[in-house]
Amino acid sequence: MSEKALKYLKEHQEELISKLNEFLSIPSISTDSKYKDDVNKACDFLVTYLNDIRFEKVEKQQTNGHPIVYAEYNGAGSTAPTVLFYGHYDVQPVDPIDKWDSDPFKPEIRDGRLYARGSSDDKGQVFMHLAVFEAYMNTEGKLPINVKVCIEGEEEIGSENLYEILQSKKEQFQADFAVISDSGMVAKNQPTILYGLKGFTGIEITVTGPNHDLHSGMYGGAVRNPIMALSHILSTMKNEEEVITIDGFYDDVEPLTDEERKLIAEVPSEDFVKATGIPETVSEKGYSPKEHTMGRPTLELNGIYGGYQGEGTKTIIPSSATAKITCRLVPGQDPENIQHLLEQHVHRVAPKGVVVEVKKEKLSAKAYKVEPTHPLIKKAAESYTKAFGKETVYIRMGGSIPVVEWIEAIYQIPIVLLGFGTPEDRLHSPNESFPMDSLEKGMETLVYYWDNVKSKE
Amino acid sequence: MSEKALKYLKEHQEELISKLNEFLSIPSISTDSKYKDDVNKACDFLVTYLNDIRFEKVEKQQTNGHPIVYAEYNGAGSTAPTVLFYGHYDVQPVDPIDKWDSDPFKPEIRDGRLYARGSSDDKGQVFMHLAVFEAYMNTEGKLPINVKVCIEGEEEIGSENLYEILQSKKEQFQADFAVISDSGMVAKNQPTILYGLKGFTGIEITVTGPNHDLHSGMYGGAVRNPIMALSHILSTMKNEEEVITIDGFYDDVEPLTDEERKLIAEVPSEDFVKATGIPETVSEKGYSPKEHTMGRPTLELNGIYGGYQGEGTKTIIPSSATAKITCRLVPGQDPENIQHLLEQHVHRVAPKGVVVEVKKEKLSAKAYKVEPTHPLIKKAAESYTKAFGKETVYIRMGGSIPVVEWIEAIYQIPIVLLGFGTPEDRLHSPNESFPMDSLEKGMETLVYYWDNVKSKE
Repeated sequence: MSEKALKYLKEHQEELISKLNEFLSIPSISTDSKYKDDVNKACDFLVTYLNDIRFEKVEKQQTNGHPIVYAEYNGAGSTAPTVLFYGHYDVQPVDPIDKWDSDPFKPEIRDGRLYARGSSDDKGQVFMHLAVFEAYMNTEGKLPINVKVCIEGEEEIGSENLYEILQSKKEQFQADFAVISDSGMVAKNQPTILYGLKGFTGIEITVTGPNHDLHSGMYGGAVRNPIMALSHILSTMKNEEEVITIDGFYDDVEPLTDEERKLIAEVPSEDFVKATGIPETVSEKGYSPKEHTMGRPTLELNGIYGGYQGEGTKTIIPSSATAKITCRLVPGQDPENIQHLLEQHVHRVAPKGVVVEVKKEKLSAKAYKVEPTHPLIKKAAESYTKAFGKETVYIRMGGSIPVVEWIEAIYQIPIVLLGFGTPEDRLHSPNESFPMDSLEKGMETLVYYWDNVKSKE
Repeated sequence: MSEKALKYLKEHQEELISKLNEFLSIPSISTDSKYKDDVNKACDFLVTYLNDIRFEKVEKQQTNGHPIVYAEYNGAGSTAPTVLFYGHYDVQPVDPIDKWDSDPFKPEIRDGRLYARGSSDDKGQVFMHLAVFEAYMNTEGKLPINVKVCIEGEEEIGSENLYEILQSKKEQFQADFAVISDSGMVAKNQPTILYGLKGFTGIEITVTGPNHDLHSGMYGGAVRNPIMALSHILSTMKNEEEVITIDGFYDDVEPLTDEERKLIAEVPSEDFVKATGIPETVSEKGYSPKEHTMGRPTLELNGIYGGYQGEGTKTIIPSSATAKITCRLVPGQDPENIQHLLEQHVHRVAPKGVVVEVKKEKLSAKAYKVEPTHPLIKKAAESYTKAFGKETVYIRMGGSIPVVEWIEAIYQIPIVLLGFGTPEDRLHSPNESFPMDSLEKGMETLVYYWDNVKSKE
């Protein structure tokens, strides 16, 4: 019975793509307050779309930040399960803008890829779900399953208000299982089931010395240099063997089992050097890059700044310097505890002569793992394989999706991560893109999946 | 015979200050190309002024960068010495602009200080000399000494073209001695003779990893973080005891003699903590802050940047990170050799997995020292004491004035550094200012000095 929907998607591909482009053209950058109106515009686009395809109770739920789109479809009847579909309509900033080959908000198809900020993370994948719902509604006149839609606008800034909503509106959002498409496949056209995600936490360190920039000739020799102090602090957090040297950081880490190391070894590996242009890979002593990215915790410096950054030289001792740090956590590690360990460490190694402040990131999430053998996972794998004509692989990933941990914690329902991105998508970077293959076969996969899970058992 | 000139300065104080304000209102920031026209405007201001006070051969000498103002006065006759007066009309950038209490280019007098970028470094002090020349010309109709004026517009960017001009126009610029007012006193109204300056050199380090910013979840664990790599490199250059840990850095350093340490101890000390707001001072192991700033070499990080600096978090591994480093050198150290040692060190400690580039600063200068007992120095001290009514102290300073080393090397003439700045002037920083006392008594000092050195002996 899914043939009609598939046919519809093929026949209406052009309209659908131009509709997707309309969505991608809205610069819904949630982290930067000056895009507030655009974030709101992207939200309205979804509200209109859901109304057009006859979803019920379509709501724009206001929060302290950006609104959440809610909607329901109950036409599948009580024998069919209810799925909670989660996605996000906000996107990452686009800087450095000069590194983009085309305008991040003027979608462009080049060599079988759709280039635009959000094409892969996550507007493109959100759109695929709505398009599949549209296909079913405009052909069968109904969906095989009942649906609750939850699309937020704050994922890229830590889903600050979602947790509270999910908790306070437990009745409204309750479902039999959840489906999220905000992840990727290990390689283009390689069906991939994500059964594990990393947790996440972070801090920001600011080192302040003098209350104004000083002439390095007049004060050099009497004043601690804040950038040097910060460098000393940062250099004590990870050694050259990529081992994190924060006391207690690894204490609660659930070790990689031999089975998992075997599973990871079997995953078709991305060529990290080719994909990133680095001279060579580095990874935690005793672990391969694949093992480290998928199954071991990480600590990364996301940004640093202080003093003069302009043309030429400025012979100053800067007043302050700041570094942004985030960690990806594995099962066993507690984000709050890790933040605490980081803070303790920083203050312990901070040199005298400067004031060191640690700001704890609000965003935090535990790591997530589901059994690869769960029936809903198996059915997803079948649908994938049917659409892409290839066996599905099972992986854990270094990414973090806080909402996954929250849905699990609040609703205790299985969560299926159906991701269609590829390693070449350049998420969070200039020239983000999404393969047209993923768009097409991804929607096919969803059509099969809904058909596949339509009866509760 | 200098009374008339002194009287003139008092009576015309208001006009002179408004004329100085006109000069200070021109944003002649040499380091930033978009201010090129303003730099040129500041140059024209001086050309006009020198013509107005009847200097001869007033020239705007074009260079590959910003022009140099040249002029002569030969009316004192052959019995009088000829002084080469050097100064600069360019200023430092003004960022962070939001830290200024008043517009850096709208001069404002508050609590006995003139606030403006360049008020102390060096437009204010340059203007004092021209005003004193004006006072002599408009009263005596002549100056006690012959003068050659050399005012450049590239001091803040390393006087890139001056050296070549000084060499190629040796005849034109040749004089019996040189006077420069681009320095300060150890304390407000404390006559100070600067008999030693530090040399200067620098490098810029750029660490590049991936060819684009990477998603920290997808690649964290396989890729060396450029900011972390840079931090590791920087942290090996100086230890917590403020000792520079570059092999060979101190090899050629002329040690501080007991006499000099005694001289330094006698200098009324600035309260570094009060002036800068730091929790406590730090200095090279075995040396006091005063000894380190005046007589020991330094290495400072002037700026650092890489990755995300905006609002909120951006979970990336940045593509690259850059640090700007400058060193202040003491007698004995060779700038080119120090640059070489720095470059060697950086490449030696650079971790694998990233590409590390070292850019050598063009600006470099050896340190400078003159005998405090030289008659021209003694006369300067007398003039100072007469004007300020206080004994003159002799100091070495951490600042670098490349031109001093060049004039000495090319012309082999004594150089007198008559500086009127104060430790509170905030050179190179927001809220730069210059005390009205220095302006008044400084000009008085210059009047006495020209009168004092008018006959060759």
